[in-house]
Amino acid sequence: MHPISPETAPDLDLRHHGDAEVRGLGAQLTDLAVNVRAGTPPQWLRERIADSLGTLAAYPDGRAARRAVAVRHGLPEERVLLTAGAAEAFVLLARALRVRRAVVVHPQFTEPESALRDAGHAVERVVLDAAGGFRLDPRAVPADADLVVVGNPTNPTSVLHPARDLARLARPGRTLVVDEAFMDAVPGERESLACRTDLPGLVVLRSLTKTWGLAGLRIGYVLAAPDTVAALERAQPLWPVSTPALAAAEACSTALAVAEAERAAQETAADRTHLLARLAEFAEVAAVGPAAAPFVLIRLPNAAAVRLRLRALGFAVRRGDTFPGLGPEYVRLAVRDRETTDRFIEALKQALS
Amino acid sequence: MHPISPETAPDLDLRHHGDAEVRGLGAQLTDLAVNVRAGTPPQWLRERIADSLGTLAAYPDGRAARRAVAVRHGLPEERVLLTAGAAEAFVLLARALRVRRAVVVHPQFTEPESALRDAGHAVERVVLDAAGGFRLDPRAVPADADLVVVGNPTNPTSVLHPARDLARLARPGRTLVVDEAFMDAVPGERESLACRTDLPGLVVLRSLTKTWGLAGLRIGYVLAAPDTVAALERAQPLWPVSTPALAAAEACSTALAVAEAERAAQETAADRTHLLARLAEFAEVAAVGPAAAPFVLIRLPNAAAVRLRLRALGFAVRRGDTFPGLGPEYVRLAVRDRETTDRFIEALKQALS
Repeated sequence: MHPISPETAPDLDLRHHGDAEVRGLGAQLTDLAVNVRAGTPPQWLRERIADSLGTLAAYPDGRAARRAVAVRHGLPEERVLLTAGAAEAFVLLARALRVRRAVVVHPQFTEPESALRDAGHAVERVVLDAAGGFRLDPRAVPADADLVVVGNPTNPTSVLHPARDLARLARPGRTLVVDEAFMDAVPGERESLACRTDLPGLVVLRSLTKTWGLAGLRIGYVLAAPDTVAALERAQPLWPVSTPALAAAEACSTALAVAEAERAAQETAADRTHLLARLAEFAEVAAVGPAAAPFVLIRLPNAAAVRLRLRALGFAVRRGDTFPGLGPEYVRLAVRDRETTDRFIEALKQALS
Repeated sequence: MHPISPETAPDLDLRHHGDAEVRGLGAQLTDLAVNVRAGTPPQWLRERIADSLGTLAAYPDGRAARRAVAVRHGLPEERVLLTAGAAEAFVLLARALRVRRAVVVHPQFTEPESALRDAGHAVERVVLDAAGGFRLDPRAVPADADLVVVGNPTNPTSVLHPARDLARLARPGRTLVVDEAFMDAVPGERESLACRTDLPGLVVLRSLTKTWGLAGLRIGYVLAAPDTVAALERAQPLWPVSTPALAAAEACSTALAVAEAERAAQETAADRTHLLARLAEFAEVAAVGPAAAPFVLIRLPNAAAVRLRLRALGFAVRRGDTFPGLGPEYVRLAVRDRETTDRFIEALKQALS
């Protein structure tokens, strides 16, 4: 685990995302590349969103959605900011905060670093070791870093960092951004910092995209101290979140919806156990573990060739080599139902033979 | 017509918008405050947007919408950028462009100035005179201004500047932003600069919000030189425009949709003629003219009190005093159908008596 500067970092395509792996390939390709829960959005949510189309002529009014998200997390409304997806939150953070020394913990989702660089910031990387299971030692983060970005659970490693380790990174004078885009897919949301109003400078990012199948709608939110929320809000355009997205945020924040997400998280955990058991049948495949997210990172020989063969066999998987800290031997797999996993395993057998 | 600095400018609420005038007041209030065409979106467009909800689980793919907008204006795709409403475009311009001397022509929509200030730019104002009918003399703009923002037709004055006057503002080394958010409500889109690829530094902003009733959806676009489009795109978040908004942009860019907008523009012009004729019955009311937008700016004594009386009588109108260059004697009225206008005129009679 060692910080490396952008200058010495390999030149990766930080703006490669899983959706590029499934584009234009028609319905016959089974998608294990994009981490959106299959079969979503559920019918009731579709209906709520469709209902909101009746008021499209009016400008969006985000107050009810903000209130609903605050209630869902037991936080005051001033600690909530709705955003056009977590992607907007990264841009707001990069633009609105005064930053001297930004550190991003890798491997992780590449958009935070992209957004920081695009806003003119130098970005240092703390790269977690495969040998250490991609786990974080808080001491690896430079003490004077005033912006630290870390994912939990982490995309693409599926590692869930203990909340107490992340909490140790918080301190006065530092903004600690914890990207919890996949936390609602972790049973009990254990290790979430969403409610830790005691931690100075903490910014928690949440998404509704993955669990609820709303990638196309652009909706997420930030939980942070009121002054940080106000600073980010000033950097937002007027009316930043659309009416259908606000309707979805409100609908997904009810106790009933949160309970449904919890059941889905438990199902995903069971499906992941099945996927990992099946992957263990291959001597040449190693899964990063313990996996806690709705995807699994695996290491295998000739991963690039295998990926192309899988594609020819009808399965899209996510290449790992565009993530800083990962080599060409990595592939990320979305957790799917048992039947899909079993079909995938058959294809993998062929691809590896 | 004279530039005044922000320091000497009165302290206005630049973030007051018409939607605040109608909030929380229930359906019994007739809205003449918000400039969205009544009875929109049309049924066929609602259906197109509803259809797009079937693909919400996938990340948005803006390519088809971009192509459709390019074809609609006869421009290459590299000159088109889709944005989450014109409001996002203002923020992108403020963030992405290097600006030394920014000038905003007022009175006009206040978001461009707000976005520039929020991004840390000083903003100078060229304030057009009521005595001159709020018409622009291009010579009033400082020669070394490297960013000039002007609306056409102008919100809230309804003045349509001649294209040749605006074209004279374009020059190498200057970004000329023409906010054409209401241009599709002008028959023939006369005086539009959308297709003027010959003008250096020209940035045209367009909206689909007003004519199509999509304020809640957040969709607009920028037409500019490819390098400017690329710079603005780099400042956007990933997946900036939602799938339903992209579906709407595509649907509103067909030849059939453009023809429908043209018919609506002609109806609006007829309705505006009726409104102006009825307003002429009041000796104490003066309308700024010639009006070319789907709203009319009027001047009347005790406007603030009249506005409150109108509200009590069931009509929301837009206060004028939050626009730089306008005093408390101004009110903006959306053009509505004849029947609504006639009802409004009766209320105005009462309010003025």
